[in-house]
Amino acid sequence: MHVLIIGAAGMIGRKLSGRLLADGKVAGRGISRLSLVDVVAPEAPAAAPCAVDTATADLSEPGTAERLVAERPALIFHLAGVVSGEAEQNFEKGYRVNLDGSRLLFEAIRLAGQAQPYKPRVVFTSSIAVFGAPFPEAIGDEFLQTPLTSYGTQKAITELLLSDYSRRGFLDGIGIRLPTICIRPGRPNLAASGFFSNILREPLAGQEAVLPVDESVRHWFASPRAAVGFLLHAAGLDLAEVGPRRNLNMPGLTATVGEEIEALRRVAGDRVAALIRREPDPAIVRIVDGWPRNFDTKRALALGFRAETAFDEIIRAHVEDELGGRIGG
Amino acid sequence: MHVLIIGAAGMIGRKLSGRLLADGKVAGRGISRLSLVDVVAPEAPAAAPCAVDTATADLSEPGTAERLVAERPALIFHLAGVVSGEAEQNFEKGYRVNLDGSRLLFEAIRLAGQAQPYKPRVVFTSSIAVFGAPFPEAIGDEFLQTPLTSYGTQKAITELLLSDYSRRGFLDGIGIRLPTICIRPGRPNLAASGFFSNILREPLAGQEAVLPVDESVRHWFASPRAAVGFLLHAAGLDLAEVGPRRNLNMPGLTATVGEEIEALRRVAGDRVAALIRREPDPAIVRIVDGWPRNFDTKRALALGFRAETAFDEIIRAHVEDELGGRIGG
Repeated sequence: MHVLIIGAAGMIGRKLSGRLLADGKVAGRGISRLSLVDVVAPEAPAAAPCAVDTATADLSEPGTAERLVAERPALIFHLAGVVSGEAEQNFEKGYRVNLDGSRLLFEAIRLAGQAQPYKPRVVFTSSIAVFGAPFPEAIGDEFLQTPLTSYGTQKAITELLLSDYSRRGFLDGIGIRLPTICIRPGRPNLAASGFFSNILREPLAGQEAVLPVDESVRHWFASPRAAVGFLLHAAGLDLAEVGPRRNLNMPGLTATVGEEIEALRRVAGDRVAALIRREPDPAIVRIVDGWPRNFDTKRALALGFRAETAFDEIIRAHVEDELGGRIGG
Repeated sequence: MHVLIIGAAGMIGRKLSGRLLADGKVAGRGISRLSLVDVVAPEAPAAAPCAVDTATADLSEPGTAERLVAERPALIFHLAGVVSGEAEQNFEKGYRVNLDGSRLLFEAIRLAGQAQPYKPRVVFTSSIAVFGAPFPEAIGDEFLQTPLTSYGTQKAITELLLSDYSRRGFLDGIGIRLPTICIRPGRPNLAASGFFSNILREPLAGQEAVLPVDESVRHWFASPRAAVGFLLHAAGLDLAEVGPRRNLNMPGLTATVGEEIEALRRVAGDRVAALIRREPDPAIVRIVDGWPRNFDTKRALALGFRAETAFDEIIRAHVEDELGGRIGG
């Protein structure tokens, strides 16, 4: 099977391609070819059990989607996008990349299928940013999408397109609404949710980190490991079982910033936890106030999606996967 | 105040412009100018208490939206669109007109506001087709949008854009999800919901009508009079009261096709009701199966929107407004 990852150079994209190459198969089928595409050059793996090609391309530019689809990958992971903070700062770029890019991809697939039959599985990473306050105690599978950011709006629109293109038989799509991924490895990015990771990752590496919101802020989390697990599970799922509602809240765990810090203290000690500096940022506070806090993910759990159940697990996974087991830099 | 109606030649557009010219004011302000635009030439009124101009233009064509917005109407009614049956038959046309047309309008407003401050009230007619089965007993204000038609998808996407453009301060938008309008006057159109009106309108005019679904089919209705009332109310509403969730289910009444026919019998007699011919159409049955049946419109009622409460009222309004009080053609 030919697998295409769009947004392959991002954090999730890199972990997903690493996992696919390690497994050599996905959705019960062997991988014959893996295509890695992003706006920045994706890293080519040193050794691979299958053909791997990499390309630098912007999905939102005319012609890109047609080229990507021309070789008819049977499985497409669509992870590409501008993050929440950037989409809020740059209105036009957010809509161009997150909305137009996705629509161009779906259109290219539809038009390729008119020439000769083609109906790839498309796994799209959406976000819990499709929801906007006020919220019920826990957001259920039938809660409405009223995003309070342009990013959330672009994700919600892409979800609607994914469902309609699937219903019309142009592609076989599934959208997974990722919890905030924590602990994000690497450098801070422009996502307004970055601090949820920064306050753990930086202290674990012996560095100071800034906490821009109150410790009482509650949010919804899953680890990078869990996120890759969601993507692989979505790739192999029987979508007849999923029905016409193709966008699913992924499981995760709910925790306050204070609970995050307590878990950090348990796993890494007081000295590490003391590296967090409180520095309220009204812009971040305002964005985060509109975000979901807790979910009841019955559908996803019934379909076999799994995530962590305790924050200590999330921190330990990071120490194992990113720090070679060593805390403190 | 300069008022623009896009989609002015449609049934609702004609009734709305007639009412605006009769009232001479809207949202508590006098109307100085009324611009009527549609893809087919809108009828110019014989006499008007203000300047009236008409134009034939396709909103989905580049440049149209900029021209319409150039004269900075303070109130825009955006009623333009391809109906459900046509959007389902012609995928590309539906997306071009219903999605791209709306987005071009919102973008033209945003860009006009960059040159000098401009933030019109935009009243957008959405539809209960944004909802898809399975439904709760009555659809509440927090039920999710999972349309089962391309038309519903296009309306749901436009709603999301309207909310985001409003949140960003580019326009002051409100979307009203119309119930199925019944009794639609005039000729049958391509809307899959047409039969709900046909089975009343045609017999009232002494003509046979075809009923393509079972009498047990339940649906959600309001009259053309009520629809115009919603639009006028939306134009004058304090949107600070509405908050960031800018798209509202409109009040209406729930009735089965059998109850429609019973009301017809009460108002017009057995001979008229006997003009309905049963002729099941599986394509229509399949579309209608995915449609909402009943609503609980707390928010709209609290905001002062009002509709009929009995089907006999709907039929009598039609006989008064369209037939000059005469039944039987």
